[in-house]
Formats: sequence, C-alpha cells, structure tokens
Amino acid sequence: MSYKYAYNTRDIKFILKEWLPLDDVLSWDRYKDYYSKDDVDVLVDQVRKVAEEIVAPTADDADKIGARWEDGKVYLPPSFHGAIKFLQEQGWGASTFDFEAEGGIPLTIYFLLWEMLSAANPGMMSYVSNGGAVANVIYHYAQDYLKEMFLPDLYAGTWGGSMCLTEPSVGSDVGGLLTKAIPTDDPRIYKIKGQKIFITVGDRDDIDQVVHLVLARVEGAAPGTKGLSLFITPKLWVNEDGSLTPNDVQTAGIEHKLGLKGSATCQLVFGEENNCRGWLMGPAPDENGVGMGIVQMFNMMNEARLDTGRLALAVTANAYWNAKDYGKDRVQGNLLSNPKAGKVSINQHEDVKRMYLLNKATTEACRALLAKCYYYEDAREFAPTPEKRKWAQDKLDMLTPLCKAYPSDEAWGLIAESLQSYGGYGYCEDYPAANSARDCKIWSIWEGTNYIQALDLIGRKWMQKKGTLFAGILGEIDEFLAENKGKLPGLEQEMAHLEKALGAYRQTQMAIGKYVQSGKVGLMATYARRILTATAQLYCGYLLLDQAKIALARMEELGSDHYDYNFYLGKIFSTRYYLNNAVPNVWHTLELVQIGDTSCMEAPVEIFEY
Amino acid sequence: MSYKYAYNTRDIKFILKEWLPLDDVLSWDRYKDYYSKDDVDVLVDQVRKVAEEIVAPTADDADKIGARWEDGKVYLPPSFHGAIKFLQEQGWGASTFDFEAEGGIPLTIYFLLWEMLSAANPGMMSYVSNGGAVANVIYHYAQDYLKEMFLPDLYAGTWGGSMCLTEPSVGSDVGGLLTKAIPTDDPRIYKIKGQKIFITVGDRDDIDQVVHLVLARVEGAAPGTKGLSLFITPKLWVNEDGSLTPNDVQTAGIEHKLGLKGSATCQLVFGEENNCRGWLMGPAPDENGVGMGIVQMFNMMNEARLDTGRLALAVTANAYWNAKDYGKDRVQGNLLSNPKAGKVSINQHEDVKRMYLLNKATTEACRALLAKCYYYEDAREFAPTPEKRKWAQDKLDMLTPLCKAYPSDEAWGLIAESLQSYGGYGYCEDYPAANSARDCKIWSIWEGTNYIQALDLIGRKWMQKKGTLFAGILGEIDEFLAENKGKLPGLEQEMAHLEKALGAYRQTQMAIGKYVQSGKVGLMATYARRILTATAQLYCGYLLLDQAKIALARMEELGSDHYDYNFYLGKIFSTRYYLNNAVPNVWHTLELVQIGDTSCMEAPVEIFEY
Repeated sequence: MSYKYAYNTRDIKFILKEWLPLDDVLSWDRYKDYYSKDDVDVLVDQVRKVAEEIVAPTADDADKIGARWEDGKVYLPPSFHGAIKFLQEQGWGASTFDFEAEGGIPLTIYFLLWEMLSAANPGMMSYVSNGGAVANVIYHYAQDYLKEMFLPDLYAGTWGGSMCLTEPSVGSDVGGLLTKAIPTDDPRIYKIKGQKIFITVGDRDDIDQVVHLVLARVEGAAPGTKGLSLFITPKLWVNEDGSLTPNDVQTAGIEHKLGLKGSATCQLVFGEENNCRGWLMGPAPDENGVGMGIVQMFNMMNEARLDTGRLALAVTANAYWNAKDYGKDRVQGNLLSNPKAGKVSINQHEDVKRMYLLNKATTEACRALLAKCYYYEDAREFAPTPEKRKWAQDKLDMLTPLCKAYPSDEAWGLIAESLQSYGGYGYCEDYPAANSARDCKIWSIWEGTNYIQALDLIGRKWMQKKGTLFAGILGEIDEFLAENKGKLPGLEQEMAHLEKALGAYRQTQMAIGKYVQSGKVGLMATYARRILTATAQLYCGYLLLDQAKIALARMEELGSDHYDYNFYLGKIFSTRYYLNNAVPNVWHTLELVQIGDTSCMEAPVEIFEY
Repeated sequence: MSYKYAYNTRDIKFILKEWLPLDDVLSWDRYKDYYSKDDVDVLVDQVRKVAEEIVAPTADDADKIGARWEDGKVYLPPSFHGAIKFLQEQGWGASTFDFEAEGGIPLTIYFLLWEMLSAANPGMMSYVSNGGAVANVIYHYAQDYLKEMFLPDLYAGTWGGSMCLTEPSVGSDVGGLLTKAIPTDDPRIYKIKGQKIFITVGDRDDIDQVVHLVLARVEGAAPGTKGLSLFITPKLWVNEDGSLTPNDVQTAGIEHKLGLKGSATCQLVFGEENNCRGWLMGPAPDENGVGMGIVQMFNMMNEARLDTGRLALAVTANAYWNAKDYGKDRVQGNLLSNPKAGKVSINQHEDVKRMYLLNKATTEACRALLAKCYYYEDAREFAPTPEKRKWAQDKLDMLTPLCKAYPSDEAWGLIAESLQSYGGYGYCEDYPAANSARDCKIWSIWEGTNYIQALDLIGRKWMQKKGTLFAGILGEIDEFLAENKGKLPGLEQEMAHLEKALGAYRQTQMAIGKYVQSGKVGLMATYARRILTATAQLYCGYLLLDQAKIALARMEELGSDHYDYNFYLGKIFSTRYYLNNAVPNVWHTLELVQIGDTSCMEAPVEIFEY
C-alpha cells in the first residue's frame, strides 16, 4: 500500500486546549450545554481513528482506480461508498452545517477534525463536504421554500452538492461567463443553458441527487460579475410530490488529472435539450440588472478557500510525518558534525533535520493561521453579540486569501523536500510522497488562483474600510510585541526578527502605494504573489511566537523528564526555525519591491518566443 | 496527445555562434578539418527536426505505456526501438564518444544538440546515452584488451551500458556498499555477487547486451570508498570466440515511478547462482587494499551530473515554451494596468509574464552555465596543450555541482509556474505541464542528491588547491566587472547587483569558514543547499550579463525593425529579471547564514514525532 496515514494529533489538541480561546467559544449559547473542553481529546482521538481506519484505506483506490466516467455517468471507487456514508451518518459530514439543529459541534473544533480526515483521502472528502457547503449558501440566502426543499437531504448527506462557476472559456475572469438563465412563467424558476467545467464532484454514483449551484446571467442582466445570479439547479428536478425526475443536466466527461484522482472533476452541460430548470436564489436582478449571484457564491467560495488551505496543509503534514517515520529506520552515512559516531539513521543528519524542521515549522504555521480562522468562522456565526460577529467576519475577510494561498503555495516545495528526504525511494509510487505531490498541485489553482488571492489581499483587503481592517491585523502584532518583548527567554532574536519584519512589511505597503499612485500598477501585479507569501510569513511568525510563549511556560512547569516535554520543545524549534529562516523573507521581499523591477511590465510578448 | 515538443533553437545558436569561443574549439586538431561555424545552424536545425519528428512522437508512449517488467525481462514501449536505433545510426548516440574516430562532432556543440533531444523524450535518452558514458570510462581507464572487447559495440549502440552503484541499503553513503568481487584463477576476472537498485536502463529488449559497470569491493580490500573497484560485468559474457552467453545477471524488477516512466529503473541481482563474472578495470587493489573504482566511477558520474542538469533544463524549457504557446491563444480577463483595453490573451498579464520571464531567465541562465561546461568538457579532452586541458578540467570540477543541482532544484518550482499559468488545465494530463512536473523530480535526487552536490561544492571544491581553483571562478566575475562597469547602458543596476552579490558571496564563504573553525560544522550542513543555489545565481548572473553585453551590441547594430531584434531584446529582459529578482538572493542568503540558526543542529529527533 503506497498511501499511509501518519497523522499526529498533538498540535491540534494544543491549539484547541491551550491556544485558541475555546472557553469563549464554549460559553456561547449554541454550545454551552453540549460541549466542554474535556471533550476535545475524545473527539480528536475518535476522528483520528475514523480517519485511519475508515477513510485512509480508501486512499489507494482514489489514486489507482480513481473516479471513472462511462456513458455519461461518474463512478466512484467502490470503497468510497461506505466511507462517505459512514462519515455522514456519524455526523462528520454536512449535518455540521445544520445550524438550527441542537448539539452541533463547535466549528472551531470541527474544522480541525476535518483536517485529519482530509489527510486520509483528500479527494474523497469533497463528496462529503460539498453538500454541506451548498446547504450553507442555501441556508444564508435562499427563500424558505427552497430551504425546506433542499436542506434536509443536503444535511443528511443523501443529496450531494456542487459549485458551478468555471466555463471552458472563463476561469479567473468570472464576469465573462456565458451560462444563461431564461425566465419562465413561474418567476421563481428559470431555464438554465450553458456548459460548466472543473466541477468538483459534479456527479457521483453513491447517491442519486446532486444539487448544483449554478452561476448564470439572467437574459438582459448587466455584464460582468454584477449581472450574475445563482440558481439551485438539481441534477434531478424535485417535483411537488417530492418525486425526482431528470433535469437535463448531463455529465459530458471528467478530467484526467495529475492527482486527486478520486475526486471527479466534471464537465457538465445544463439544458442541452432545453429542458433544464433552476430555482433563482434570492431576488431577481434589480432594475439595473444587478443580481445577487456573486455575493452568494462568495459565501461558498470563501469557505472553499479555507477548505483549500486545509487540504493543502493536511496532505503536506501527512507527507512530512510519513517522511520522518521513514527517516527513523533508514540508516545511512555518518554525521558531518560527528563522523566518528558511525552510521546513523538519516533523521539525525542536519540536512534531513532541516527538511523536517522546514516542514514541521511551516505546517504548524499554516495550522495556526487556519485554526485562528476557524475560530472566526465560528464567532461570526455564533458569537453572542452582533459586534463580535462583525469583528470575526472582518478578521476572516482579511485572512482568507492567506489561508487559501499560503498553504497551497508552500505544499509543492514542502512535499518535494519530504520526497527528497527518502532519496530515490521518494520518487517511487510505493512510497507516499509522490502521491502527495501529485495531489497537492491543484490547490494553488482552484477557488481563485493564488494570484487572484494575492490581488484580493493587496488590491482589496489592504484598502477595505480605508485600510483600518488590515491595520487591525498588523496591530495584533504590535500588541504582541509590546506585551511580550523581553519576556520570551531564548527567543530574543526571533522577537527582533518579528519586529523587523513588521516594519519592513509596512514599508512594503507604502512602496506599493507609491507605485500605484505613480501609475505603475503593473508593479503591484509583479510583486503580488511574493507579497502575499511575505504577509503570511509575518503573520504566522507572530502566531508561532504566540504559541511558543505557552510552550515556554509549559516546559518550565513540566520539566524535561515529562513525557509531553518534547512536544513543547518542538514548538520552540518550529518557532526558531521559522523566525530565523522564513520570516527574514519579509524584509527581503521589501527589498525586491524597492528594486522595483519593471521587466514584467515592459516585456513585449514577442520575447517569449525564445 | 499530451506531450508536445515546443523547443526553440535561437538561444542555442546564439551560445554557439556568438557567445562561446567556438572559433577556438574549431581550431583544435580534432575538429579543424571537419567543422566550421557555418555548420552550427544546419546541425541545430537538423537535430531539432529529429527531436520533433523522430523522438517526440515516442514521448506519450513513455508516459502511458512505460517500461514494463515481465518474467525477469524489461520491455520498452515498442516505439522506442526505432527511435533509439535511428539516433545511434545517425551519429547522435554513443559514437560521439569514439574519440579516435575521425570527424567526431565537437562536444561543445554535441551537448547542446543533446539538450534538444532530451526535451523530446527525457526518459528514452538514457538508452541512447548510457552506452556512450560506459564507453567513455572504458576508454579512459580500461586495459587495451577490454577496449577491444567492448568499445566497438558500445560506440555502435549495438550494446548498451549501465552504471551500477546504489544498493538497497546504500545510496548516498557509497563507501558502505556490499557487492563483493571474489578473485578467480584468472587475475583479470572476478566473481561478482550482490544486488544493485535504481539502475537506470539496466535492462532492455531493443538490444541483447548491456555492459554494466559494477562498483564492488574485492574481498579483503579496504573499507569505505577507497576499497572499491570497478568491474565490467556484461549481461552476456563475451566468450573468446566472440559469442555471448548469459552471465548470471538477473533483472528482479523495475520501479514504479512518479514520472520518467519510459526509462527502466532496474533492480539487478549479480551472481545469484554464483556464476557472474566481471573484468577488473585497471589495477587490482594495492597493498593497502585501495582500489581505483571510485575514481573511475566518478569519471562517469561527473558526466552524468552534467547530463542530469541538462535533462532538467530541457524538460523545464519545453514546459515553459508549451505554456507560452498556450498563453498566446487563451483570452482571459482585462489587464490590471489597462483594464479598458478589453479582454486580452493571458500572456499579456503581468503575473503571467512574470511566470514566463522567471522561466525564460532561469532556463537561459542554466543553459549558459551548462554550455560553458560543455566547452570545458571539450577542452579538457581536445585542447592543444596540457595546460589548457588541465585548466578546463579544473573549471569543470568547480562548476559540476552547480550544473547538476541548480537546474534540477529549479525545475520543480519553474514547471509549477508553467503549470500554474494554464489555470485548471495545467493540472490535467492532456496538457504537457503535469507530465513535465512528474518527470523532473528525480533529478534533484539521482547521481548524488543535491545535498551531496552542495557538500561537494562547499566542503571540497571551495577548498581544493587551497581555494585557488574556486577563487578563479569568482575571479572571472571580478574581471568581468572591471572590464564592463559603466559600459552596459541600461544595465547599471544589474551590474551593481552583481558586484554586491559577489561581495556578499565572499562574506558567506568567510562566515562558513568561521563556523567550521569554531566547531559548528552543522551550520555548514544547514546552509549548504541554499549556498549552492546562491552560488549558481551569482555565477549565472555574471553569465547572463556577459550575454547581455553581446545582445546590446547586436541590437544597436540591427535596429528594432530587424526580425531578430526581439531575441536580443529578450536576452536583456532575462538579464534584468534575473539580476533584479534571483541575484539578490545571494546577499539574502548571506544574511541567513549570518543569523546562524542552530535549530537544525540542536533539534533532538524526538521533536519530529509532532
């Protein structure tokens, strides 16, 4: 078996029990009678077990059998059926998003559990998650009769869901999409006509119904994104008596991908026989032809962006833990720093430790970033006051592009280092790293490419509410530095690097501002992706130091003989590595921005012939 | 067809006709009556045609059919047979290494032609090249009777070759290998017993004979690398009458790899029936048990290291040129810097241009580095004076680790950017980027991992001959700066960056020297790979500026209306991009080294459990 589940739960427990304000979460009305901090260990251990015993055994089928398309239908690897059903039935699927049911698990916890499941078979999890994501949009935006019609089955997982955005000619440029919605006699219902591609789990054979959320333009509505509306367009039309009949949605094929082969990436044709109907969600386009579609879609899209980062993190961390397991047993060579000690296991070589520490530090950084946002996702929905809900939404808005792009950008390089640490075996599919590398590459592309994320960050989020929201993110770091400077023994250099990086980052913002003002907006585009990375490194550097603060206290308390000491010590090493190796990139990026190389702006396309 | 050959020849012609001292090469005895500069265009165009029409059509079979292993035999994709034979017969194969034949093509030219062929089907080319590489070792080190026995068929390509080094328990730690050589009554012949893995094209069905060069230890010889000897161990024993009989070499299996699937990566068992014989190459181990094996093997290994860099470059450049072809036709979105101009092809977007320019600049940098070394390879063999041959060998020694590691490290990130530029299509195997990504990953591992290359550079090459040889490499940059400062209009900032990088690099050397002296050799290991990258960036920055100097003169001469102007203009853009975006990493690396993070040295392995 080439795929191996190697997830460790300790950091997840630390985040929930010692780092995030879980007491706050558990005091909210929705949760207070149902959950306590003591449940964390049980939940995490239970889901770890499910991930390993129920989900992970399907991972090889994902890659070797893959989703198949035959005669217009998608077939999952047979082993998926039972695993998906199990997850739904046990409450790890869409039912979490039934916000009106009692006893729902706190989202803060849920998404961290989901990370463990994702690592076990990343491609399969979309079959489990997409119904919930679709339900969530319907819950927030649809009319009551639509909620009644669709939510129960979506929550139960007996119906699936998909998000239909991309078309053959339109990906990043959403505003240009061509799918049409034609009014019918019933103002609630439109005829849908168009082609959608890259539709994740757009068809499946484990259940009959897939509820597609289709972004389309009502005839005559405004051009661009503002003219778009969202239509609940089920694969099977729901008749008044509840019976289901085909709705002229054809699956024209699936993609043959580098990885993530268990997840069917579908080409869908809506209304080829002019007989596809969709329910308009929310109001019709207004008198200016402006629809609600893009706003509604972004609700799902933002969830999907966090989900993307989580998938990337999960697969990267699993690759790393597999690599370090291999490194414990593989004996090879003498230590450069102590050649006389004889042959050692490779996990003792400095360069191998560097590859591990790079992975450990960066995955912990990503997990901290994402976990913080899970808390915000939870708070924007369930915090007791509107102010706090708004506060959480604002924080989430600022950090979402980082959550999507940073883990998915890093995954490629990190998994390559895990793979490298095996030597030649890493290149063989019998070992897990190759599969992880193939799986991860889509995440820098889908749900808005990482360049789109970078533009969202720099071109929108930086400026939103006159820059006050993003200034609040940087302000957290100011506060942390003010509170903790001189108080983290052994991490003085690391604190200094955080401070230096924060200053450099603000200068970077100013430099980009000046470029834009002087008409060199092309420089913003040129440096956007690098600045996004630097942003994540700055913010994650702060988060790791914030965690290290707790770790230092716990180490003091436990003493080095305690069985749990090494976890906290590891946290210190992650912090040291990250602040001394990744965070300097923040001011290095400033320097690149200041160089202000205009070659990408000025290069005529003809030179790329050579 | 997913694989597409998109190679452009212009930079190769530029390198040969305008940049490298080809006049010098063509004045050497071996070449002067046979070749002139006028032949370059014809040769390049001809091989480009062979690559596209004969080799590239086999690439899809490489990936989709792959090499198969059945009942102890390796079968190539059927289309390989004709293509391999064609290349051999037309003189693009092993016959180039017949240094005593008349009319041999200059190596300087040959290796650049080979780059084009490699891009067309990288996995297949090992079947063509390995026989030549084995012949080359035999030519330089073997006794005359062995030359007579093996060289003619190897040169003709009717026999293949392999290099047998790695064993299941031994990869990087060559000195630990276990294969034994047991003396027989004939002092020239030993019984060989052992297992070798990861043997590239170790078996094949297009020809019967494979001549294995097996690294083994004569019983009783010294431990470690110095006790090793090299044995010509053919798959079929060559009897005195020239007939061939099985030599107890079994192919126990092949690896299932991430990519490069056409190239059979074999597990070989020598002497399972105690009946495998090998010819000792050169003298037997001396009275101290010291053999010649590792020295001889390194002759082939160093060739293989350049070959690795060339393969990585070829696949990366082909992926880039495919991407830019796609980008010309794909219309998507409005320009950030000029939104009112309407929808544009994606190759006009700044971030896409950045991905292309990053690829263009870095592949041109790698090609310049490798091409310079092809010249040294040529000169060390055929330059008229021993002094010049020695000079070329020394240069080659210094630059070999860069040639192997830099292109193979960069390939992964560069191809990811080519892939990214397609959007979702990049992740689909119907487009060529995914295949290129899978193919390229082995090159950072085989022929000595890139960490081994980095240690070779920093731990050996820096110090060789008291540091004078490597100082000579840096001295080239001093000279270039002294000669050209203020003389490259428009590239003043770029020249300043080169100068700053050179200074920073020398400080990096001093910093590492101090760490080693103060017992912190672990810091050398920690930063080795990053310093290797910085070394390549420094040296390639110089090479690109050296090329830009020619380009500036040619642009002046031709004027912007000339059909060839854009090639030279592109060279300027490559130089600008590289010096403003890659070369600053040289001083950024210095800063990281100066931070001197000891976390990789100090981290106990226990922390990697989390």
